[in-house]
Amino acid sequence: MGNTFGHLFRISTFGESHGGGVGVVIDGCPPLLSIDPSEIQAELDRRRPGQSKITTPRKEADTCEILSGVFEGKTLGTPIAILVRNQDTRSQDYDEMATTYRPSHADATYDAKYGIRNWQGGGRSSARETIGRVAAGAIAKKILKQVAGVEIVGYVKRIKDLECFADPDTVTLEQVESNIVRCPDAECAERMIELIEKVRDSGDSIGGVVECVARNVPKGLGMPVFDKLEADLAKAVMSLPASKGFEIGSGFAGTLLTGSQHNDEYYTDEQGTIRTVTNRSGGIQGGIANGENVILRAAFKPTATIRQQQRTVTREGEETLLAAKGRHDPCVLPRAVPMVEAMVALVLCDHLLRHHGQCGTLKSEF
Amino acid sequence: MGNTFGHLFRISTFGESHGGGVGVVIDGCPPLLSIDPSEIQAELDRRRPGQSKITTPRKEADTCEILSGVFEGKTLGTPIAILVRNQDTRSQDYDEMATTYRPSHADATYDAKYGIRNWQGGGRSSARETIGRVAAGAIAKKILKQVAGVEIVGYVKRIKDLECFADPDTVTLEQVESNIVRCPDAECAERMIELIEKVRDSGDSIGGVVECVARNVPKGLGMPVFDKLEADLAKAVMSLPASKGFEIGSGFAGTLLTGSQHNDEYYTDEQGTIRTVTNRSGGIQGGIANGENVILRAAFKPTATIRQQQRTVTREGEETLLAAKGRHDPCVLPRAVPMVEAMVALVLCDHLLRHHGQCGTLKSEF
Amino acid sequence: MGNTFGHLFRISTFGESHGGGVGVVIDGCPPLLSIDPSEIQAELDRRRPGQSKITTPRKEADTCEILSGVFEGKTLGTPIAILVRNQDTRSQDYDEMATTYRPSHADATYDAKYGIRNWQGGGRSSARETIGRVAAGAIAKKILKQVAGVEIVGYVKRIKDLECFADPDTVTLEQVESNIVRCPDAECAERMIELIEKVRDSGDSIGGVVECVARNVPKGLGMPVFDKLEADLAKAVMSLPASKGFEIGSGFAGTLLTGSQHNDEYYTDEQGTIRTVTNRSGGIQGGIANGENVILRAAFKPTATIRQQQRTVTREGEETLLAAKGRHDPCVLPRAVPMVEAMVALVLCDHLLRHHGQCGTLKSEF
Amino acid sequence: MGNTFGHLFRISTFGESHGGGVGVVIDGCPPLLSIDPSEIQAELDRRRPGQSKITTPRKEADTCEILSGVFEGKTLGTPIAILVRNQDTRSQDYDEMATTYRPSHADATYDAKYGIRNWQGGGRSSARETIGRVAAGAIAKKILKQVAGVEIVGYVKRIKDLECFADPDTVTLEQVESNIVRCPDAECAERMIELIEKVRDSGDSIGGVVECVARNVPKGLGMPVFDKLEADLAKAVMSLPASKGFEIGSGFAGTLLTGSQHNDEYYTDEQGTIRTVTNRSGGIQGGIANGENVILRAAFKPTATIRQQQRTVTREGEETLLAAKGRHDPCVLPRAVPMVEAMVALVLCDHLLRHHGQCGTLKSEF
Repeated sequence: MGNTFGHLFRISTFGESHGGGVGVVIDGCPPLLSIDPSEIQAELDRRRPGQSKITTPRKEADTCEILSGVFEGKTLGTPIAILVRNQDTRSQDYDEMATTYRPSHADATYDAKYGIRNWQGGGRSSARETIGRVAAGAIAKKILKQVAGVEIVGYVKRIKDLECFADPDTVTLEQVESNIVRCPDAECAERMIELIEKVRDSGDSIGGVVECVARNVPKGLGMPVFDKLEADLAKAVMSLPASKGFEIGSGFAGTLLTGSQHNDEYYTDEQGTIRTVTNRSGGIQGGIANGENVILRAAFKPTATIRQQQRTVTREGEETLLAAKGRHDPCVLPRAVPMVEAMVALVLCDHLLRHHGQCGTLKSEF
Repeated sequence: MGNTFGHLFRISTFGESHGGGVGVVIDGCPPLLSIDPSEIQAELDRRRPGQSKITTPRKEADTCEILSGVFEGKTLGTPIAILVRNQDTRSQDYDEMATTYRPSHADATYDAKYGIRNWQGGGRSSARETIGRVAAGAIAKKILKQVAGVEIVGYVKRIKDLECFADPDTVTLEQVESNIVRCPDAECAERMIELIEKVRDSGDSIGGVVECVARNVPKGLGMPVFDKLEADLAKAVMSLPASKGFEIGSGFAGTLLTGSQHNDEYYTDEQGTIRTVTNRSGGIQGGIANGENVILRAAFKPTATIRQQQRTVTREGEETLLAAKGRHDPCVLPRAVPMVEAMVALVLCDHLLRHHGQCGTLKSEF
Repeated sequence: MGNTFGHLFRISTFGESHGGGVGVVIDGCPPLLSIDPSEIQAELDRRRPGQSKITTPRKEADTCEILSGVFEGKTLGTPIAILVRNQDTRSQDYDEMATTYRPSHADATYDAKYGIRNWQGGGRSSARETIGRVAAGAIAKKILKQVAGVEIVGYVKRIKDLECFADPDTVTLEQVESNIVRCPDAECAERMIELIEKVRDSGDSIGGVVECVARNVPKGLGMPVFDKLEADLAKAVMSLPASKGFEIGSGFAGTLLTGSQHNDEYYTDEQGTIRTVTNRSGGIQGGIANGENVILRAAFKPTATIRQQQRTVTREGEETLLAAKGRHDPCVLPRAVPMVEAMVALVLCDHLLRHHGQCGTLKSEF
Repeated sequence: MGNTFGHLFRISTFGESHGGGVGVVIDGCPPLLSIDPSEIQAELDRRRPGQSKITTPRKEADTCEILSGVFEGKTLGTPIAILVRNQDTRSQDYDEMATTYRPSHADATYDAKYGIRNWQGGGRSSARETIGRVAAGAIAKKILKQVAGVEIVGYVKRIKDLECFADPDTVTLEQVESNIVRCPDAECAERMIELIEKVRDSGDSIGGVVECVARNVPKGLGMPVFDKLEADLAKAVMSLPASKGFEIGSGFAGTLLTGSQHNDEYYTDEQGTIRTVTNRSGGIQGGIANGENVILRAAFKPTATIRQQQRTVTREGEETLLAAKGRHDPCVLPRAVPMVEAMVALVLCDHLLRHHGQCGTLKSEF
């Protein structure tokens, strides 16, 4: 259980880090959407290992195959299954993992839960699982763009204590992709890359914060009570490997203000649209989008896998020492950016379909 | 849609702030659990308005009636419906709300979504909706206690910039309930109360942070991938009114550490149990509990309703000024504590039942 | 578990035969639908006990109260909770049921499953539970009518071996309601009523078949694979108390034909609409409506409660004899008609919303 | 939507008749279950085309590949993805289908719903989709066998008007598999085979009835209200291609009896177990198993594809004639047997896990 996300636009991912492959089944995609495999591949390429000098050197082309649901370049409305085979699997690197628990990884907890785990490369808890999410996210992004012109841009906001300046209202994908750390502030990006390399060379790792904005989210999108937009976004982002925190709008910093400082006052703009003067709400009030930009942040811890030696125990509880040999990222942030974007897209797309189902039906002809 | 939470221990809440009443239907509660209405009422009393000088003066006894699912003091395994009637409804206080949008409230977004709203006292977006959650949480707490000795304690960690000291490993319900602000640090509590009163008297409001610990969470509880424990907790907490941020374990502060500083090394304790030396993971690794205390924090913004005058617009977009007349809390934190506890209990209880379903069945006789 | 039905138009029922009451929470109802409580009450009156000389003499007004989700006569889009209090509860009639299992009732199976049951009047397994379904069905019917002009008409097709003639393409609600057995063939209805009275007087019971037609179901409504329209209809109808069989279109009789006899050939009518010459498919092909009338039949067994003495056992397994004293229907068919209609309406309405969500979103402006 | 079945033991199928392949993702399978691919293949071989002279000559080895979720011969508790590639795809046989609707097939309804379809060989509406169900059913069967000794045996009860004798209490898989029509009555099987061949040679098709028994279903398995065992079984079976009717226990014939004739009286057997004298309930009372054999029947219409010429229309509504050229089964019943068994297994296995989740948790240590 736990491998399915969404209600109407629903994805189920499968696969372990080593074995036949990883992938996703998307159920509920609208029919007649044009899909080119290259669009999905482009997003996977932003996520794949070995893409730059600051990511893991594991080489995986991560080439995707669309098994079903697309016919002559268009979606059928039936499930879209996408498969990525595992290839560069140096499982000998992982022999020690069969018996020894890596600190702050899920080895011990999977064993506690299931009594068994595929210990090669992290098995199901490997970040390879997110391939399916990113592939599905590419389709979700396309739907959002087509229906409402929604643009989703994620970027590295902070690496350790290096925080960049970025204006969520104007930041572009081009700015983000202009450097390998995915920080739209070019000068800060340089320093981030230097820091990552320095930490990597010391056998250590670092974390940081990804910020993500969704622009043109239709006013009225979202749900009340449990499936509030911010609640679904929080779940989506906190389900990513290594995430430790989530904020919407003003977040934790907002708790330092008074109500009169924090409230977003309303005005009517020149087009007659009701707008807010400020956007501490992060584009959402009571779970429902207000038409302003949706802005969120996610905290990612420093990579748990490090080359430095650490105290740990074996499966049988014997104390031992461990230093990672497998290939790994010294900092997950650059590759986390497309993952966060994908999760935001999946939430918004699911809400889009659910909203049309409940609130559009009475207005429509069949 | 969006009014149901949980998979096996599933709750559906209903009701607007004004109207027949609010309540909850709980489906999936195990049979043969002893339930006394006073246990549910005790939790509702921690949540109800008018409980102290620093909460809203709206007087609601919030007396609950169990309509079904309990027979001769025991649960039947059938749906437990609980109803709380609305009573002290001074809807004349809200007349202005029919036409004027309150800043940072959900008035405008509900209108945008549905084209209609019950404008009396916030309608469905009122925090009265959480009555059903707290009632259901009381039952979830009892199951968790009985099956695994789980203890859930929430408390006010910070009001604006007043942060208290509290040790999540030892803090008790008694300490929390020993003062009206629900902060276990008595000295700090005094200052918090003073601050709230001062802010209230100035017609303004403040926010803060609730911390919550769940102790004795069974090792192995949780799910991989999308329904990670931290993801479900994030959704649960972020679905509460006024929440703006969520952290598990080290949270955002953890991103300032390196991996070698952040990782929780393992050791084996005197009982032969595998433990972690530190608990920056917050009791969860890869979505699954590791047996350490589960520790989370939630940010709550300053109450949106304030007596000070603010700029806003009417439904038709005409600009106007608004100063709240309705009764309201100058700070939601004290009443948010039982809500956070309830949501944590609902998540853990649902995971408990799901875990037994998937992982307990092969081991059990029917 | 098991008390919720539907995906987007989702209902959860609650309540036992004796106790606080029974009811339903409807989540996902479109906003701005006009609802008058009398419309719901009218359907409940078709279902309620004591409505005629051939139903149980238990007197229940079954007056419904709408607790939430409706404001100034219109739906809010928020959950609609409807409550019907239990009133005429002569629980002394049921004392024997605390210890003795009624043959072909669910007393023994509830005990086996839960280890406890509310034995008064059948508790949760009582047909009183269907009040919530019928109330929700009234709203579903209204949506279907408004969006697509769908008409749902159910009727008693057969009582024991008395089978009536009825043309599903033309049968009207007025014809059905013109007699107390709800059979549109007036002459046959007379004989059915006589038969029911005769059987009742002998202390026995009988069953039969309800046929139900849904007209103007939009072409294209439905789903492939698991949520085929006929599959969801089958589940809906087979979840009603006392149902033992389900057929769509030609049903079991269709298996006696060859393909060339059974297939529905296509033609194009004068309006240019693609139609089928015959309708052995029952309006559905591959799970999806083809625009012809949807026709189904449900078999209801003879009422399990009879005054004649039967062999049975106590909870402890001691053999004994039992003759029912409680009030009961000698034949459930007349009251089953509105239940079948309600279940058909709930399925179609849920499919309507789901269809618009998946297949309408790309075509719509937000 | 509509491609997922089950709650805790949940399967999602994907794939069209022609294209990359078909398959299934199973989420919720208990960990540590021994799985040999040959066990799954054995069930697929009972379903595959070309297995005998009375099935379609389309040749597909239908060799399955387990992509994930199984490690060193045991289930991991993570999603099990199974893929079967499409091979013998003579799509030129289907060219006419691009423009012409086959009577009583889903060509026209898929077009009406989605505005597009993969017209090669039926696309998603092809019975090839059931490969995923049968593969998942093989695993469900194994769990049921291991936990409770449940045995599921399906068989052809009737072909057109040729009805066999079979005792559901004693019929064995060996008897069923001893002939190519899967009828345990050897003498009747001969006549059935002759009939199928005769009909096939005339370019026509026939249908019939599959009966299925589940023995050793634990007393207490099932759910009340909407997810009654008979309701979920009805949905499961009615979701199979070509099914037109469903019966549990006495079914439609039971409506011809009186209550005193129909009721299953209780007695206590020599082991002290409460049993019923008769089994008109079909092993289920009020949605919950009573420990007797669960017996159901499914009606399958004559295959829609026939070689005889039929009237039909094109996509544009032009009237035309059509005679099938593609390879097809003259009677689906022999291959429907493993499909029905699979669906019964999937329902029972899902209920098993759900039951343990709700009703086993309070009794268990974690």
